[in-house]
Amino acid sequence: MADEASSPAPGATDLVVGADLGGTHSRVLVADLDGRLVAKAAAGGGNPISHGEQAAGELRAALTMALEGLDADAVRAFVIGMAGGVADPAAARAFTDAIASAGLRVEPEYIGDAEVAFCSATPLPSGTVLLAGTGATGARIHDRRIAAVADGLGWLLGDHGSGFWLGREAVRAAVAALGGTGAATLLAESVPQHLLGDLPTGPPERQRSQIVHAVMAEPPIRLAGLAVLVAEAETSGDAVAAEICDRAAAHLLTTIGAIRAPEEDSPLVLNGGVVHSARSPVGRRVRALAAARFAGYVLTPADGTAGAAWLAVRRACPTASEAHLTAVHRRLTLAAAPYIRKG
Amino acid sequence: MADEASSPAPGATDLVVGADLGGTHSRVLVADLDGRLVAKAAAGGGNPISHGEQAAGELRAALTMALEGLDADAVRAFVIGMAGGVADPAAARAFTDAIASAGLRVEPEYIGDAEVAFCSATPLPSGTVLLAGTGATGARIHDRRIAAVADGLGWLLGDHGSGFWLGREAVRAAVAALGGTGAATLLAESVPQHLLGDLPTGPPERQRSQIVHAVMAEPPIRLAGLAVLVAEAETSGDAVAAEICDRAAAHLLTTIGAIRAPEEDSPLVLNGGVVHSARSPVGRRVRALAAARFAGYVLTPADGTAGAAWLAVRRACPTASEAHLTAVHRRLTLAAAPYIRKG
Repeated sequence: MADEASSPAPGATDLVVGADLGGTHSRVLVADLDGRLVAKAAAGGGNPISHGEQAAGELRAALTMALEGLDADAVRAFVIGMAGGVADPAAARAFTDAIASAGLRVEPEYIGDAEVAFCSATPLPSGTVLLAGTGATGARIHDRRIAAVADGLGWLLGDHGSGFWLGREAVRAAVAALGGTGAATLLAESVPQHLLGDLPTGPPERQRSQIVHAVMAEPPIRLAGLAVLVAEAETSGDAVAAEICDRAAAHLLTTIGAIRAPEEDSPLVLNGGVVHSARSPVGRRVRALAAARFAGYVLTPADGTAGAAWLAVRRACPTASEAHLTAVHRRLTLAAAPYIRKG
Repeated sequence: MADEASSPAPGATDLVVGADLGGTHSRVLVADLDGRLVAKAAAGGGNPISHGEQAAGELRAALTMALEGLDADAVRAFVIGMAGGVADPAAARAFTDAIASAGLRVEPEYIGDAEVAFCSATPLPSGTVLLAGTGATGARIHDRRIAAVADGLGWLLGDHGSGFWLGREAVRAAVAALGGTGAATLLAESVPQHLLGDLPTGPPERQRSQIVHAVMAEPPIRLAGLAVLVAEAETSGDAVAAEICDRAAAHLLTTIGAIRAPEEDSPLVLNGGVVHSARSPVGRRVRALAAARFAGYVLTPADGTAGAAWLAVRRACPTASEAHLTAVHRRLTLAAAPYIRKG
């Protein structure tokens, strides 16, 4: 690779850190500037928006484990990927304190979950991301930054095709089947079982209201927990569940279509529990529809620490060639998975 | 009318009372057994489910005004129409006390808003009701009782095509237009104006999040207040608003279709702010679609006191002929509107 000669010769001990913070995990990866794995560690999660201090504590724990025995002053760049950012000033302070107490003197750069997913999937600068987990967001990525967003409006206004949406449709299908206005479905048993711990009793009207009241008694977002029932029923050959998955995939394709031209020859990155696996009912349908409607190709991202660490390398080595950085990307994505808790 | 001879000859002073209790009004109508208006009165509203005591106080006020100067002991039957009934025991007691303190000794019969709307529209025993206001419910009526229900699942799980639904779609259309993923629409101005008191500022991403945050900061049901913006925009020729109205009407037709066979030759009763007027954007579309898809004919109900009072006459005169009762129905529906506060 002739281009490698043009990349800077970094000090042997120069390091970068990439972090991926989510609701269930806080992962940290330490690498050298060539993308060779030095250390990785994981701690618990915490919503950085609503539980800033807890999330900061978990980040500190993961950082401390990963940097054990390393020279923290050798860290040249630090990128943190997380959904929603640290908008709250108290949360931002807690993060700054946590990073300092882990010994890091470098200022972190915060990026969103769409950007970290994209950069964990490909070293190319532009394309499209679809995040479909509890919520559903499409993002057009240009130069590794969000250029436009589709849906991502939250459960009340949007998130069509998301886990929340699937769970809500599961309840609707169960209620329709129990009330005789919808086709028979396995969901008419699994949904009441999940919500009430039992099958509802009495006349159809009473069954309907038992289910509706159980749903309304919980925070709406809990409906996302019922998405798995749709996948289970679909796998068992349930026609109603299959139709729900068809509609979810159609919604997600609409979200993609709002920010991606059919002829665009760039990566389409799929992430989140609803679409990450090509074998899941909705993931399979989204891939089939995307292949028919869009040029380009589908990718799924490696662990978010890979993209975060890679962006840190880009930051630490502003004159590195793209060929070199592509090689670094390959190393980091291989290094990031599988993820094992250290210590 | 030969049949009139077969009806009982009631005492000259025998009376019935019909009441219609809603969130914004409590209306009472007093009539004789031939359906001739004797008195009517109105007081404030109150949700009988969540504000039982307040609703009972308003009912007492309306009853007291209507029965002023009349012999309360002459009341042979009393029917109260209201959404949701009085499930709570404390609310039920408050209603019983209010009725007794107004001097009525007759036991009231409670009926739901679908039944009262149907009986206020037609003396026939069976057909279909569509209630589309803040929520959306379809009901198959058999022998003046609900035989099956469609939708009516509340804003979280259903109410497709309702005022809530229209308001939510208005926000979605505004956000899409502002973000460049949807067509230009008057809603992109009127929705932020309504929610923020001003046009949003800054880049599209910031405008989106200002609107989304304003919506999420209020109880979800408040979105129903934005339905009027869709009607205004549609009337001004806005294509996006027209398409929202098309979809609302299609949803409402689906709700009707779940409980009504295409060939059924019976009344289809439309009630609620979204569909009551044949000139409103959604009311017009629902009528056009219904005419194309269903046999039978569309009716809109008179004030709910007419149906409640008519059911009270049926109860007081169990041997009256249907021909006589049809004549009583005609008199009561004419008497019920327009409604003027007495006292």
